[in-house]
Amino acid sequence: MPITHKPFAGLNPRVTGFRCIRCGILLPVADYLEGCPACLDQNRPASLAVEYREFPASLDQLADWQVYSDHVTLGEGNTPLVSLEDLASETGIGSLHLKNEGANPTGSHKDRMSRFVVQRALEAGAPTVAAASSGNAGVSLAAYAAKAGLGCVVVTTSEMNPNWRRAIEMHGATLLATETPERRWQVLADRVRVGDWYPATNFSVPPVGSNPFGVDGYRSIAFEIFHELGTSACTDIIVPTSRADLLWGIARGYRDLQTAGLVEQPPRIHAVEPFGRISKVLAGQDYRGIFPGHSALTSIGGSTVTYQALDAIASCKGTAVVIEDEAAREDQKRLARCGFYLELSSAAALTGLRKLVAQGVITSDAAVVIVGTSNGFSEFQPFAHPIAMVG
Amino acid sequence: MPITHKPFAGLNPRVTGFRCIRCGILLPVADYLEGCPACLDQNRPASLAVEYREFPASLDQLADWQVYSDHVTLGEGNTPLVSLEDLASETGIGSLHLKNEGANPTGSHKDRMSRFVVQRALEAGAPTVAAASSGNAGVSLAAYAAKAGLGCVVVTTSEMNPNWRRAIEMHGATLLATETPERRWQVLADRVRVGDWYPATNFSVPPVGSNPFGVDGYRSIAFEIFHELGTSACTDIIVPTSRADLLWGIARGYRDLQTAGLVEQPPRIHAVEPFGRISKVLAGQDYRGIFPGHSALTSIGGSTVTYQALDAIASCKGTAVVIEDEAAREDQKRLARCGFYLELSSAAALTGLRKLVAQGVITSDAAVVIVGTSNGFSEFQPFAHPIAMVG
Repeated sequence: MPITHKPFAGLNPRVTGFRCIRCGILLPVADYLEGCPACLDQNRPASLAVEYREFPASLDQLADWQVYSDHVTLGEGNTPLVSLEDLASETGIGSLHLKNEGANPTGSHKDRMSRFVVQRALEAGAPTVAAASSGNAGVSLAAYAAKAGLGCVVVTTSEMNPNWRRAIEMHGATLLATETPERRWQVLADRVRVGDWYPATNFSVPPVGSNPFGVDGYRSIAFEIFHELGTSACTDIIVPTSRADLLWGIARGYRDLQTAGLVEQPPRIHAVEPFGRISKVLAGQDYRGIFPGHSALTSIGGSTVTYQALDAIASCKGTAVVIEDEAAREDQKRLARCGFYLELSSAAALTGLRKLVAQGVITSDAAVVIVGTSNGFSEFQPFAHPIAMVG
Repeated sequence: MPITHKPFAGLNPRVTGFRCIRCGILLPVADYLEGCPACLDQNRPASLAVEYREFPASLDQLADWQVYSDHVTLGEGNTPLVSLEDLASETGIGSLHLKNEGANPTGSHKDRMSRFVVQRALEAGAPTVAAASSGNAGVSLAAYAAKAGLGCVVVTTSEMNPNWRRAIEMHGATLLATETPERRWQVLADRVRVGDWYPATNFSVPPVGSNPFGVDGYRSIAFEIFHELGTSACTDIIVPTSRADLLWGIARGYRDLQTAGLVEQPPRIHAVEPFGRISKVLAGQDYRGIFPGHSALTSIGGSTVTYQALDAIASCKGTAVVIEDEAAREDQKRLARCGFYLELSSAAALTGLRKLVAQGVITSDAAVVIVGTSNGFSEFQPFAHPIAMVG
């Protein structure tokens, strides 16, 4: 169900179409907003992925590797990869790095997605972009839409943290709230299907991944980690995960490096979740089900699973691990005591690492990268006590 | 008044000592915590600056250009330099770029300073670092101290924004409040002079610049702008300024590039201030005076001037411009509508640009860089109205 047929002049000429990650069909370049039409007809929703004719033999020109060679930018990407020696010892592994996506212009990994979604919206002549978001994705899309001169609507719930809310409103986007997170998708679906809004995120039930132009942007995290560490210094990557756009993007980035002959054996990529969803599907449940649960880790909340989560984990021999909110809170403090104040959901990556070590999945010779998805400044908590007076 | 005589093993071997920016005396490497002892004796307080034997003929090895070749890091620096075409047209100049220091690990330019202050504290065997700070410097120092395993004390006032406060407390630093911003320096002075705390910031009255090991770190902003834009694409740099650590560091960075033969004519570097201080001194008042004023731009508040502000402006033929809070608020919105949600004090750079164009100081052929010192996420403002409900 392509909704637009505008020219794709800014597209990377190596792009040949979109391929379904489930059935493998190759479709022409267009906007497939609910994933693969053939799989959707069979009630097996699955994402489409940008298909490339070939990759260059080196990463020197990153533009050759991405869906848009030229695009709207706020200076995203090339985030720091920092060694955490103390935590490597503490968790009993060979080495540990943090990929700090909180250093992106709007404070999260979502900027890698928003640049391409907004570029595509510009190219398609869409006047307004929209997202269902609890925070990071909304702030990011609002910022990139502002840069591009597009309208932006963020559909959220009334619980949105005031710091995220303020950023979104400063960028000039419209905020709308629904009673429940699930209702956000219906609101988005109604306006997308009549052509009012161009969507960055999923709106289907059961869900697919986010806009495939946008998800393509997460592959660059794999390219950057590989560029800095090579292969032997990265055996496992741990990613806080909900519907797995980021997880899938990193996994696909490494598969592309493998296709290009630059990587022999990609690292394993593991999902961390605040209650059982992906892990339940890996244990045999249907991926289209509802997996209710409650967690303070709102950025990786939600009661659904996507096919792309399974594809990512299968493609790189990863796994999924469930962690407790309280342990994530402890690890948020632990990371801040190492210099990195990250969002609670980001700290879950360290908690997941501890659990994977305890399970024997990650062993003492491992070289691990945890992905810090967002910085902590979006988290406001009022204080009950005054600062101690002195002098 | 050197307080330590520890070895300086990690120091860049090109460093020959510290030179007074006022009287020109060259002193051996040590901690001169209240600036040049000779000038202080004459009641003419002035900073000392790291002196280098020579600079390499290229910027390929940035470590050769900085006081510490190897240092504590959270991945600071290499922040995005982004073109703002719409605002260039709107302000009537040739080109405009934003150097977005808000993309540093703790969200501000202060990280460039903290890395070297903490490195020096480690080398000197100091157990605790300290700063007088309204926000950014405190968050940054707390993060780098945490990374290095040092104690940290931030002396502030009870008005500190809760977002900054939370970050500082998450990093494990101690927060103390005084009744007035001025009292912070006395508290710091008392503990520094007995050797309890190693200071990142000034504590003298009249003030000098911050710790000279730290200020050296701001020079890298000049190196990065030059590396990306060359000379012709940068005629003027505009910096929100209080006691001018950042302003001086950028000006010195360009002078060093000139010394190395890489730059013929450095850009002019202009200070923006929320009420008359530097501008009053440039008009003839004594730099050691008190210049009272009130502003919501807390990160560039304070009622004093430093000698380094005058040195920076004189060395690169810049000027100082006073802007109004309300105009800065409008420009904070304007920048957010271009994709950049910056702290109110950072937006003052755009306001200053408008005023310098109106004054004819900056002309239509100018190629300007505004320095965005900090992102906007530290600014919490509670909301009086709920988000509009939908669906």
